[in-house]
Amino acid sequence: MTTTSNAISRYPVPKLEDLAEDIRKRMLEVQEKAGFIPNVFLALAYRPDEFRAFFDYHDALMLKEGGLTKAEREMIVVATSGANDCLYCVVAHGAVLRVYAKNPRVADQVAVNYREAEITPRQKAMLDFALKVALRSSEIAEADFDALKAHGFSEEDAWDIGAIAAFFALSNRMANMIAMRPNDEFYLMGRVPRK
Amino acid sequence: MTTTSNAISRYPVPKLEDLAEDIRKRMLEVQEKAGFIPNVFLALAYRPDEFRAFFDYHDALMLKEGGLTKAEREMIVVATSGANDCLYCVVAHGAVLRVYAKNPRVADQVAVNYREAEITPRQKAMLDFALKVALRSSEIAEADFDALKAHGFSEEDAWDIGAIAAFFALSNRMANMIAMRPNDEFYLMGRVPRK
Amino acid sequence: MTTTSNAISRYPVPKLEDLAEDIRKRMLEVQEKAGFIPNVFLALAYRPDEFRAFFDYHDALMLKEGGLTKAEREMIVVATSGANDCLYCVVAHGAVLRVYAKNPRVADQVAVNYREAEITPRQKAMLDFALKVALRSSEIAEADFDALKAHGFSEEDAWDIGAIAAFFALSNRMANMIAMRPNDEFYLMGRVPRK
Amino acid sequence: MTTTSNAISRYPVPKLEDLAEDIRKRMLEVQEKAGFIPNVFLALAYRPDEFRAFFDYHDALMLKEGGLTKAEREMIVVATSGANDCLYCVVAHGAVLRVYAKNPRVADQVAVNYREAEITPRQKAMLDFALKVALRSSEIAEADFDALKAHGFSEEDAWDIGAIAAFFALSNRMANMIAMRPNDEFYLMGRVPRK
Amino acid sequence: MTTTSNAISRYPVPKLEDLAEDIRKRMLEVQEKAGFIPNVFLALAYRPDEFRAFFDYHDALMLKEGGLTKAEREMIVVATSGANDCLYCVVAHGAVLRVYAKNPRVADQVAVNYREAEITPRQKAMLDFALKVALRSSEIAEADFDALKAHGFSEEDAWDIGAIAAFFALSNRMANMIAMRPNDEFYLMGRVPRK
Amino acid sequence: MTTTSNAISRYPVPKLEDLAEDIRKRMLEVQEKAGFIPNVFLALAYRPDEFRAFFDYHDALMLKEGGLTKAEREMIVVATSGANDCLYCVVAHGAVLRVYAKNPRVADQVAVNYREAEITPRQKAMLDFALKVALRSSEIAEADFDALKAHGFSEEDAWDIGAIAAFFALSNRMANMIAMRPNDEFYLMGRVPRK
Repeated sequence: MTTTSNAISRYPVPKLEDLAEDIRKRMLEVQEKAGFIPNVFLALAYRPDEFRAFFDYHDALMLKEGGLTKAEREMIVVATSGANDCLYCVVAHGAVLRVYAKNPRVADQVAVNYREAEITPRQKAMLDFALKVALRSSEIAEADFDALKAHGFSEEDAWDIGAIAAFFALSNRMANMIAMRPNDEFYLMGRVPRK
Repeated sequence: MTTTSNAISRYPVPKLEDLAEDIRKRMLEVQEKAGFIPNVFLALAYRPDEFRAFFDYHDALMLKEGGLTKAEREMIVVATSGANDCLYCVVAHGAVLRVYAKNPRVADQVAVNYREAEITPRQKAMLDFALKVALRSSEIAEADFDALKAHGFSEEDAWDIGAIAAFFALSNRMANMIAMRPNDEFYLMGRVPRK
Repeated sequence: MTTTSNAISRYPVPKLEDLAEDIRKRMLEVQEKAGFIPNVFLALAYRPDEFRAFFDYHDALMLKEGGLTKAEREMIVVATSGANDCLYCVVAHGAVLRVYAKNPRVADQVAVNYREAEITPRQKAMLDFALKVALRSSEIAEADFDALKAHGFSEEDAWDIGAIAAFFALSNRMANMIAMRPNDEFYLMGRVPRK
Repeated sequence: MTTTSNAISRYPVPKLEDLAEDIRKRMLEVQEKAGFIPNVFLALAYRPDEFRAFFDYHDALMLKEGGLTKAEREMIVVATSGANDCLYCVVAHGAVLRVYAKNPRVADQVAVNYREAEITPRQKAMLDFALKVALRSSEIAEADFDALKAHGFSEEDAWDIGAIAAFFALSNRMANMIAMRPNDEFYLMGRVPRK
Repeated sequence: MTTTSNAISRYPVPKLEDLAEDIRKRMLEVQEKAGFIPNVFLALAYRPDEFRAFFDYHDALMLKEGGLTKAEREMIVVATSGANDCLYCVVAHGAVLRVYAKNPRVADQVAVNYREAEITPRQKAMLDFALKVALRSSEIAEADFDALKAHGFSEEDAWDIGAIAAFFALSNRMANMIAMRPNDEFYLMGRVPRK
Repeated sequence: MTTTSNAISRYPVPKLEDLAEDIRKRMLEVQEKAGFIPNVFLALAYRPDEFRAFFDYHDALMLKEGGLTKAEREMIVVATSGANDCLYCVVAHGAVLRVYAKNPRVADQVAVNYREAEITPRQKAMLDFALKVALRSSEIAEADFDALKAHGFSEEDAWDIGAIAAFFALSNRMANMIAMRPNDEFYLMGRVPRK
């Protein structure tokens, strides 16, 4: 098991040229868009079938149409990943949140304590629900759905919020288990104006 | 939101005839094998894209070749679902565990307290790792992998154990959020000899 | 200390013929009724005086007249024993609950997550109180008694609920400490129609 | 339900003259010895059958012969009652501990943090075991018994330690549920030299 | 590191004659008033600059004018120190609380479970706020300030309550880290009428 | 109480010209050095005496000579503030840590999960001790000091580590209680090369 301090994962990382065509294609697309390949792609490619299911699931939740903005979806990721102490997800999705929210401070705020973040009361209600799904899901009750509705969220939105929290419960545990390292690029992304 | 006491889910359940062909096919296959359609198929079909990713992920972990027996994989599901108080997963996967292990007691034991279950010390070490991934994944360290190796588990096995625990972290939260009801059939399955 | 995997207890189990007359009589009575001697009788007989007090206490709470049905008392046992991860009590009292409630599913539901069980809102309020006594008794306040009264429970009922939760706080810890093994008979009891 | 600030219990307290003969006799005996009737006798007399079982159990554990001194048994009570935030038991048994140990400081120390108390390493090992039974009994394993043996405790002693912790798990919950008030006499008892 | 069982601290304790003049003066003043030098002065004098800041902070909070009585400030100390299992602070400030409140029972009550203490509902609301600052400060919200106001506390009082809880979060951790021993004199102080 | 979303504190912030001379001087010095006045100075100036003690304590721990580098002291602040979910301290001291460590990533790593941070094993041992003081100080034992010594830390270093963790237990609670807002400048500081 690898112990180099700057390894991407506890497990070996496959070379791009050894990857199945569909997986390599997915990586090149994200590289095209982001300018680099996020380490989660490289680390999870160690298991191609899990890789495919993971990103299909991710895209079904994060890229779909719906009542939540892209920034709001990333808030859910960052808040629940903060609660789960997941370094990769806080840093990588924090970057994406800054970009979508066009706010260089909001990711650090949401990761540490969303109650004090520069977000709306509606977004705080969204994160209340998300964190309950993340941390005490067996106690979810009708009252929790009612609290969302009081802020104008639909039942579809409620599913989205809970499902994103649930998916990153998986993602956080995988990243923590294999000690996935965030790319250096994420730390600064969205903190300074694009030129 | 539905509140009938015997509803399968807090969300509507689509009719079989309204489902996409690939989803209906998947259901009919499991019905053929099990004699009924487990409610997780019906409840998650409400979101077809998430359904597909969910079962692809499930199959990638639970049906693959590897060092863990099918019964051992189900032990991981039952133990972590017990820790997450997930009724659907404890009951449904408890049934599958009884069938695979050919032991009518082991599922109840593993769900309540695996330390007292009729399983091997090696299997208890497997569940130690799985529960740490489920409950305190940010504390996973090399020593946890070493404890698995001391019982003869390979690095591939370690990934499998952790990945199953991580996948059911997702599954438990979805089931709890939508109040997924286990099929009545599961409660008795594997408790009495097949005729 | 015994380590045979199918031992009833970490401590020696006395032989029936070596027991004091009153203790043996108690065992034979339960055997007459249940068809077998539950292991809690055999394991606790190691300490005759504690045995007598334990079963006197048990009977004072579980056999008395009062506002709670026998099934409701067993629900309290199963729910709090589930919260305390007590294998013996979940399995043995789960069996008794199934028999009294004439419901083969309710014990598994109450053990894992009573909020999703096929029980009444009144019974859920009863279990809210019982679990607070089991897990955070120093926070019990007038408001908790009021919540019971709102569901029609009397002050006598409140004592019964709390006292059963308190007694099984003892019972769960004894069973866990000595690794008490449930009799095989309990696992199936109440799951299939009596012939 | 009574709310007078100096009530002994949330429930009515029976008058001495209304009590069954055996219960009154038990109270008069303790009054003879202590100079007053501890409130636990008065409060629990509300339920005569539970009263009898409670004190039979108490006496079977606290008055029996065995490897633990009386002071050590009271240390177990005070340490676990402190962990359960039980006012009655900390104050009443703290008094008894001071008397038996002939040490006016030890009860406050054990109630707050036994690791810093003026007790022996052997007694700290005893309290490690007792607190594990009180707080995490499902994790008790052979290693916990071995730790006791390393300090010279026998298997009989181990049972005693665990059983006292288990009995006061019950006692603490009853006292907390009914808001049992310690007698004023206990607060000073054992703090000043007897004349 | 010292291990004598009756040491005042894990660290060396400076001699009075080796202390800086201002520190010695502070000690002699408290000795004049209390009849002895509380060990916190001796133990913290090991680090003179920290000593000065510690007692300046203490005095700024505990000796200032304001809406809280001296007894109420000590209640905050005792309740939060009980929650942090800090032996020195529970015993030493418990003594001061008894003296200020002229009540020999209140300190033990507040240390174990303030909900059952002989204090006013207003004082219980004060301790609700203090314990939230002590244990879950990131969840403090406007509603917590509102609860104080409903009992007549001003915003200045709220700061005082929270700041005392915060200061003793520091104090408890220092005392626990260096195993600070309470002076024997504290145990009895305020328990018997002054002659 | 102020509720403007970009307020610095729940409490009023005094104007510079209304401050006592020594307090204003302290602010101007830090402004000279940092280019702006950190909000902790402005928010705590509401209480001048507490302000003076707070910064005297801070300086006694953070500016003194000793075995810990300035970056290491800030690591302790960031790690324990992350555990306490304190937004102000994570953001402000994270900035200082980046500057001292000349590493733009280390603060985010230490705040989320120091076990995965780009720091030495010796520094991880330092943070193990600091977090135990922050979260479970009553369990600190000789073994914890021994673990530090095994990494070459002296007893003086141990005091420094624990005292910094203890001081920020205070600081985190104050910042959380008054909802102290980090200056915008901190978010980017130390992330990009100085020109």
